Amino acid sequence: MKIDKLVGDRFKERPSDCVVDSHALMIRGGYMKNVANGIYSSYMPLRRITRKIEQIIREEMDAIDGQEVQFPVVMPASLWQESGRYDSIGSEMLRFNDRTGAPMVLGMTHEEAAVHLVREYANTYNKYPFMIYQIQTKFRDEARPRAGLIRVREFTMKDAYSFHTSQEDLERYYERCHKAYERIFARCGVPEVISVKSDSGMMGGSVSHEFMLLTPIGEDSIAMCGECGYSANMEAAESIVENIRDDVSEPLTSVSTPECRSIEDVCAFLGSKSEKACKAVVYQKNEDDSYIVLFIRGDLEANETKLTNFLGFGIHPAEIKENCGICAGFIGPVGLEDVFVLFDSSLKNANNLICGANKEGYHYKGLDMLRDLNDIEYHDFAKIASGGICPVCGKKTITVSRGIEVGNIFQLGTKYTEAMRMQYLDSEGVSHYPIMGCYGIGVGRLAASVCEAHHDEYGPIWPKAIAPWQVHLCAIRSDDAEVREFADRLYADLCEAGVEVIYDDRKVSAGVMFSDADLLGVPLRVIVSPRNMKNGCCEFVSRDKVFSEQVALTDVFRRIKDLI
Amino acid sequence: MKIDKLVGDRFKERPSDCVVDSHALMIRGGYMKNVANGIYSSYMPLRRITRKIEQIIREEMDAIDGQEVQFPVVMPASLWQESGRYDSIGSEMLRFNDRTGAPMVLGMTHEEAAVHLVREYANTYNKYPFMIYQIQTKFRDEARPRAGLIRVREFTMKDAYSFHTSQEDLERYYERCHKAYERIFARCGVPEVISVKSDSGMMGGSVSHEFMLLTPIGEDSIAMCGECGYSANMEAAESIVENIRDDVSEPLTSVSTPECRSIEDVCAFLGSKSEKACKAVVYQKNEDDSYIVLFIRGDLEANETKLTNFLGFGIHPAEIKENCGICAGFIGPVGLEDVFVLFDSSLKNANNLICGANKEGYHYKGLDMLRDLNDIEYHDFAKIASGGICPVCGKKTITVSRGIEVGNIFQLGTKYTEAMRMQYLDSEGVSHYPIMGCYGIGVGRLAASVCEAHHDEYGPIWPKAIAPWQVHLCAIRSDDAEVREFADRLYADLCEAGVEVIYDDRKVSAGVMFSDADLLGVPLRVIVSPRNMKNGCCEFVSRDKVFSEQVALTDVFRRIKDLI
Repeated sequence: MKIDKLVGDRFKERPSDCVVDSHALMIRGGYMKNVANGIYSSYMPLRRITRKIEQIIREEMDAIDGQEVQFPVVMPASLWQESGRYDSIGSEMLRFNDRTGAPMVLGMTHEEAAVHLVREYANTYNKYPFMIYQIQTKFRDEARPRAGLIRVREFTMKDAYSFHTSQEDLERYYERCHKAYERIFARCGVPEVISVKSDSGMMGGSVSHEFMLLTPIGEDSIAMCGECGYSANMEAAESIVENIRDDVSEPLTSVSTPECRSIEDVCAFLGSKSEKACKAVVYQKNEDDSYIVLFIRGDLEANETKLTNFLGFGIHPAEIKENCGICAGFIGPVGLEDVFVLFDSSLKNANNLICGANKEGYHYKGLDMLRDLNDIEYHDFAKIASGGICPVCGKKTITVSRGIEVGNIFQLGTKYTEAMRMQYLDSEGVSHYPIMGCYGIGVGRLAASVCEAHHDEYGPIWPKAIAPWQVHLCAIRSDDAEVREFADRLYADLCEAGVEVIYDDRKVSAGVMFSDADLLGVPLRVIVSPRNMKNGCCEFVSRDKVFSEQVALTDVFRRIKDLI
Repeated sequence: MKIDKLVGDRFKERPSDCVVDSHALMIRGGYMKNVANGIYSSYMPLRRITRKIEQIIREEMDAIDGQEVQFPVVMPASLWQESGRYDSIGSEMLRFNDRTGAPMVLGMTHEEAAVHLVREYANTYNKYPFMIYQIQTKFRDEARPRAGLIRVREFTMKDAYSFHTSQEDLERYYERCHKAYERIFARCGVPEVISVKSDSGMMGGSVSHEFMLLTPIGEDSIAMCGECGYSANMEAAESIVENIRDDVSEPLTSVSTPECRSIEDVCAFLGSKSEKACKAVVYQKNEDDSYIVLFIRGDLEANETKLTNFLGFGIHPAEIKENCGICAGFIGPVGLEDVFVLFDSSLKNANNLICGANKEGYHYKGLDMLRDLNDIEYHDFAKIASGGICPVCGKKTITVSRGIEVGNIFQLGTKYTEAMRMQYLDSEGVSHYPIMGCYGIGVGRLAASVCEAHHDEYGPIWPKAIAPWQVHLCAIRSDDAEVREFADRLYADLCEAGVEVIYDDRKVSAGVMFSDADLLGVPLRVIVSPRNMKNGCCEFVSRDKVFSEQVALTDVFRRIKDLI
């Protein structure tokens, strides 16, 4: 490929709407162009990168006995009604009617389509286990697309679905897939991707893992223990705190706390620490707006995912109306009636707490959870925080980092096969629901993540395995007859040998050539110039600038072949 | 791949809803499953076939300097409003609103997206020519999906777009692409695909060609001349007939023709031939339902595409209401007022014709187009018919055949670049609109067409280049130790050597094995059986049964490598 015909503009200025580097560099480098909010077209360099990623994924999926199939992008709503997700998934699922008025959806994931494809076929135990996968376009109508390819509405995804006759078999396969994922990320140049336990969310099922590239620009928070290696998504990480009980319980006393509506205000007013407060966080049930009050230790935050999983229905932060029976700003557990109440484990056994008195302008001091309240169940509803206790090794070693989720794997159980009535007969002729796993990787997001992990201020530094080309050949002063002849010959020889080479023979300055080469991020740069020709050599430089050497003209071709 | 784990059912009975063989065989062979009207999921064998077709297309597009890109499936309506097609395309374009209420469409073709991607980049003449292409999912909300993969709603298509600074340059590239298409179809095993001139339809532009696989089950009609090789789609083929004028013109006479409402009735009633009738065909303008009357020779049919192209607006067959000024069944050109009237060339100079008298129950005899009508313009609005005159060599040699359109190429001109204001500066600094070409191939339809062209009653006969596997290894009586050992070893050796092999070691009869093998259509079948083992050989049979041989056990591996 000659660069002067490569479609796409490259430029120096960082676009003002780019908040992360991969987004800025992929726009500046002519990798993609925005078509609509969260929707992009890809130019050739990005398409070459995503095709290489797809091929690596395909090879690794085939290596664990995956069968490549293809599901439709457009699906009838009826499939999603069967599973129940047509109603349970919100507006991120795009719904429409076709010309006959039939309700349809755009695929955002394909559990339903996978069950549909195999439910007649897989009717006896001896057809198990098997795994099917596809690499295809998906659409998720995100409310807030951001960060270039990190969070988009339309994306290419590899999604795989495995079917099993026992939990043990699923677990064995889950582990194989986990290892395949590690190989995929390593081959794509990001072996530093880690797997963390996660919440299954709308996918259902129990055990699941996310594969995370740790980076400050990530959207997810991950709790990790530096001591024992434990890691989990914040959504899923168990929060454990020391529950300290003072030796002496003070009496429960009502105090006037005018204008103190937040826990910070009250603690400041009464000269207490937030750890000694019982904070109320109020939600409403999505279905009927009824109130749910969570009591939690004053220094902790509520984890909505844990709440939703516990409750089994959707909730949202409350808007408290007058005369609703709840006294906003002064809510406490003592004497609170006719409201659904939950308690976080952080309050267990605690005493000498401040809490609301359910009366405008008043709080209690001296709340003793054991003495003043009856029949309380405590559960884990808190967000884990840095300095928290590791749920595995028990040390106060938790740190919270940010990361990009580049893949995920789920043990789904029988959620979909039961709902969609997929059954098989075992060797005794007894019917069962097969057990499923599902496994996803976002191709474009992985490309962007590799760029986040490997770039400098001048452009991406693509790992060999996914670089759009292997060699970037620069002919500086291509109007020089010697340069022209040597570079043209080398280009022809490399093409002939099947080497992926991009050739810059434009009449532009070395500066322009090099900044374009930096933006394209090709691993090996080979520079032909009048000065080099005079010295009988070419200059080789790696994109990361770590490696550079002079190679004799007669050795250039062989040396390139060695290096790539 | 072992066949006992290949997901998908194979069976003998032809499904009752399959009207074409490729559809029936691809359902019977476990290639695909219907998800909704005109929407399918693909199992592994079909996905392997389409991937190979995609790779052949990709290689040939790269060979003519194509740059692979990717456009979105979901696009903002605004792009299509720019080109004007948001309004001009009917309900086959799927429209919907996203969660913010923004109007969006599902891509059915990507001219707009192509112009959007390059219009800032390609702003000077020296960036031309270039071609970009993608291979991606498209959705066309067909009213009548049919024939399996021949006419679907969701499909994978390769669509390419070239940009030029002169018509000559476009024509040169168009010719290169034409040759690339010939190579693609030949490599996919259907060198018999022919190119025919076609109508450009909703794509705009002037010259276009369709690539047709001739088959009785095709949806398109193609006019061909056995003499000079002329060929064209019926939509586009010029209709030429002999315009015979009798020596003596009879007088125009009104005759009573009660109950004669069709041209056949009138001709039978008056004892005349349909060639001597002036038939009226009535349409209505889509926009306001106003009437358009076409007069055409009684033995010919109207070609709606020619009419639409001439008129420049959409029409539909008329529903004639009472008191509309048109006397249904008795319409004629004499005395017909206040209606938009067109005349087909077949009537030019004709005389002694029968026609309606615009009066209930009456026709005229003796109509002379020259004598009785003034200022008539004649145009070609007729469908070409078998036995018609070849527009190139002038002989009465036209035959009409049916075919499947597997690809098309269009010279688009500046329709899209003008509408979307894409311009470049020439070497003098003057602005111009670039000239475009576009080039499509439907991947699934091509797979189905190859199956139509190459199958027998037992299954598809896939050409090597696109077959899902190269070798189908049958171990008959795999419980026989010798058979098991040899077949397992051979399978392992072939896998090791990278040969695509599907291995059937099930405990089923030879009959079941062979009918499954026929349905999978793999080119070379290698049969290991106790009898063969006793004879120290394996049996090789080609899928088309043309070739068969006994190969000594020691030669089997080498011979397979030779054959594939």
